Amino acid sequence: MAGKDSNKGKKKEVKKETGLGLSSKKDENFGEWYSEVVVSGEMIEYYDISGCYILRPWAMSIWEILQAFFDAEIKKMKIKNSYFPLFVSPGVLQKEKDHIEGFAPEVAWVTKSGESDLEVPIAIRPTSETVMYPYFSKWIRGHRDLPLRLNQWCNVVRWEFSNPTPFIRSREFLWQEGHTAFATKEEADADVLEILELYRRIYEDFLAVPVSKGKKSELEKFAGGLYTTTVEAFIPNTGRGIQGATSHCLGQNFATMFEINFENEKGEKAMVWQNSWGFTTRTIGVMIMVHGDDKGLVLPPKVAATQVIVIPVLYKDANNQGIFDACAATVKNLNESGIRAEADYRDNYSPGWKYSHWEMKGVPLRIEIGPKDLANNQVRAVRRDNGAKTDITVANLVEQVNDVLASIQQNLFDVAKQKRDACVQVVKTWDEFAEAVSQKKLILAPWCDEEDVEKDVKARTKGEMGAAKTLCSPFDQPELPEGTLCFASGKPAKKWTYWGRSY
Amino acid sequence: MAGKDSNKGKKKEVKKETGLGLSSKKDENFGEWYSEVVVSGEMIEYYDISGCYILRPWAMSIWEILQAFFDAEIKKMKIKNSYFPLFVSPGVLQKEKDHIEGFAPEVAWVTKSGESDLEVPIAIRPTSETVMYPYFSKWIRGHRDLPLRLNQWCNVVRWEFSNPTPFIRSREFLWQEGHTAFATKEEADADVLEILELYRRIYEDFLAVPVSKGKKSELEKFAGGLYTTTVEAFIPNTGRGIQGATSHCLGQNFATMFEINFENEKGEKAMVWQNSWGFTTRTIGVMIMVHGDDKGLVLPPKVAATQVIVIPVLYKDANNQGIFDACAATVKNLNESGIRAEADYRDNYSPGWKYSHWEMKGVPLRIEIGPKDLANNQVRAVRRDNGAKTDITVANLVEQVNDVLASIQQNLFDVAKQKRDACVQVVKTWDEFAEAVSQKKLILAPWCDEEDVEKDVKARTKGEMGAAKTLCSPFDQPELPEGTLCFASGKPAKKWTYWGRSY
Repeated sequence: MAGKDSNKGKKKEVKKETGLGLSSKKDENFGEWYSEVVVSGEMIEYYDISGCYILRPWAMSIWEILQAFFDAEIKKMKIKNSYFPLFVSPGVLQKEKDHIEGFAPEVAWVTKSGESDLEVPIAIRPTSETVMYPYFSKWIRGHRDLPLRLNQWCNVVRWEFSNPTPFIRSREFLWQEGHTAFATKEEADADVLEILELYRRIYEDFLAVPVSKGKKSELEKFAGGLYTTTVEAFIPNTGRGIQGATSHCLGQNFATMFEINFENEKGEKAMVWQNSWGFTTRTIGVMIMVHGDDKGLVLPPKVAATQVIVIPVLYKDANNQGIFDACAATVKNLNESGIRAEADYRDNYSPGWKYSHWEMKGVPLRIEIGPKDLANNQVRAVRRDNGAKTDITVANLVEQVNDVLASIQQNLFDVAKQKRDACVQVVKTWDEFAEAVSQKKLILAPWCDEEDVEKDVKARTKGEMGAAKTLCSPFDQPELPEGTLCFASGKPAKKWTYWGRSY
Repeated sequence: MAGKDSNKGKKKEVKKETGLGLSSKKDENFGEWYSEVVVSGEMIEYYDISGCYILRPWAMSIWEILQAFFDAEIKKMKIKNSYFPLFVSPGVLQKEKDHIEGFAPEVAWVTKSGESDLEVPIAIRPTSETVMYPYFSKWIRGHRDLPLRLNQWCNVVRWEFSNPTPFIRSREFLWQEGHTAFATKEEADADVLEILELYRRIYEDFLAVPVSKGKKSELEKFAGGLYTTTVEAFIPNTGRGIQGATSHCLGQNFATMFEINFENEKGEKAMVWQNSWGFTTRTIGVMIMVHGDDKGLVLPPKVAATQVIVIPVLYKDANNQGIFDACAATVKNLNESGIRAEADYRDNYSPGWKYSHWEMKGVPLRIEIGPKDLANNQVRAVRRDNGAKTDITVANLVEQVNDVLASIQQNLFDVAKQKRDACVQVVKTWDEFAEAVSQKKLILAPWCDEEDVEKDVKARTKGEMGAAKTLCSPFDQPELPEGTLCFASGKPAKKWTYWGRSY
């Protein structure tokens, strides 16, 4: 009672000033802009342990949408989910030499529980090849046990020291890791590509981020694997490539170390062919970097938790109850057709503040309903991607909103692709290459495919911004005329390869 | 080519001997039986680090069904998923005194990365109150920020040394943990019970395991909380209670320590009321312990990845192609009506071997199709729970299978409840109590509700099997006539409470 009375007397304080803007601009100070936009967009909260981040609901809802898609697709492929322990004993972790060399510097070790020292330090998984494969060896006996295809959704830890960045490079991250074993290399090869196509769809169809499918160089492939395929994205603002997700053929290296053998159909002992593949919460960071702008996040409709935000625009003496009712009817109408819409009825914020707030959060479409809209039986729709405004008559609401959302999704991809393509620079000589590196280009160059040459290029381009290295050799190869020489070594070129600085 | 030829010549080896039985019986050596059934049923693989277990797809599919149910329900309640880091810095971990005292002995500490010592050891979360609440303090400013309701699906680590048991007590386990903050105690109280009801549904409606809702004693409540509610299950074979899942009201203890304040509607500073609640993969272990039998697992239809297994029964000179076709049609028919069915066509196992195999895995219903069934346009259905066999005409297949599955689900619950109820012993004196403890009963006794008395009972019943303690005071209280005395202290009794040994 006291509460009610005191409320009544209290002046309603409506925040009009936006105060929501980002203090850095994407084109001027990209690093600052990114740190700000992930926090102001309520994706991330910085945590008191460096390199660890809190994923807030606005980020988790995107992860959940990607999970739902990928999980359903791999279930169609008869891949089954499992869960293996977080902890690895040092013995198995170190079994595959190249593998452990690749990961050892980043492994976090548990040495104590409570006040007691453990008998043996125990590692936290940086990835689960060595966790799983002793059991693959146990479970696989005959050809009927193949293929064995498992996946898990989990956290992994890589205690890196360079440049922690939310989503992009964090000491703990969420991912799925698939691990498959086949009787033949042909089946393994096919599985690698089938999964890579799902990763392309995650980036291009869901996150509206263009990627190049390709193969990693020997220097850049997965430690201990046979070959690595990747979907490679590019951030025009920093001129850096970024490994989007990788699908590895492990060949028989791990199978040899972990003795994963089976009796084949001829009754002979044979060794399995293995793959592993994963995509991580990094996907979300790439999407933010590619689409975000100076007003905040820009979310593709397919992954936005809220696709449409409905905002009542009230005036003194207007039919405000009618406006509220129209907002509620709009949300209901959209929800019933499967569009994720909600209304912001808060009475302590002005419409202008709300516009800025939901722009910061990147909601793809805003619907405003004011007295004029009510009178004309329409709503006003404002696109987040390009700011375009249209009036939609209530009778056509669902159809037109669906059209606009599809158009936003397509436009985000098209614009991102144009920007990415504009960064591609074909080079044929070292001088052209060096110039293109300094211009932060995504460089496509003929290459002899020799490890020493890549090492040499890295050494020669080393600098404050990081060295240039191979990103991938795209599956989609331009013609390579006979006699074409490697830009770096002058030897005969074997393939076109993307080069650049990278995350 | 060579493969084909050599195959042709090879005698097809069909395994006839079952060789699948469990070597221990549930009623004779429960511990051994349990260890065997979780492995032979392909739920668990033992791992090379003690207290850690591999959850195989057969277990994960149950967890995924429980997750899907619970996640949808809490989303209806506007609870949002988030993800907080695995690591906790020592400073915040130790902020709430009672809480850290409860968890300190079980905390695993990371002290090294690669070859380097960390500056400060970092803890792995045993639960996330202290991980999350510094940020609750940051995010909650005014009454409009309340309620704040977050959940996360994750792994936690409690480095326990006593009796590791798959699902039931493991050093790492999967769970959801919900953390909510409200303006008033009334709202917090209501939230505690709303979640507890979801936990009851998980046990009773999905896992067919009867539970008692109740309140934990002061000695048994969550470390640092105000009060703890629980759904308490009971394992008749061992005569032990088991905490099924808990929903805690934390009161304002953590809010005080982490300064989680807000400006209320009157413009005054107030402190939030908080809850936390979780259920874990332990649920699966309780279900196995309650329903499993000497043939293996017995899965309730609602959580079984495969609800119906279809097995062709082939004979020499029979219309075996017709039988295969009938099996395929049966699976298709069932799948199309949403029943999870599959067929086992393997030609290197006899029908008898397959019966034992799928009984071991606990599939609720087996359908056999042989020449006679084919001729009569019927299938033979065999229930896993009670072995009952019925012939189902093909025309009624879906309807009758649905009926049988519903009947199995109900029967499992009813039988489990009868067995549990048969263990309940009402006692009023110490002698009756001591006798009931020795008989491994689920004891219901009038109690004075004093902490010292519970400590005393624990001390007096200490022994090889573990001490008896309170399990919970059930919400559903029998009448307590005036003048009833506590069975242990002789003081006036305040409530009926369940006592017994526990996991």
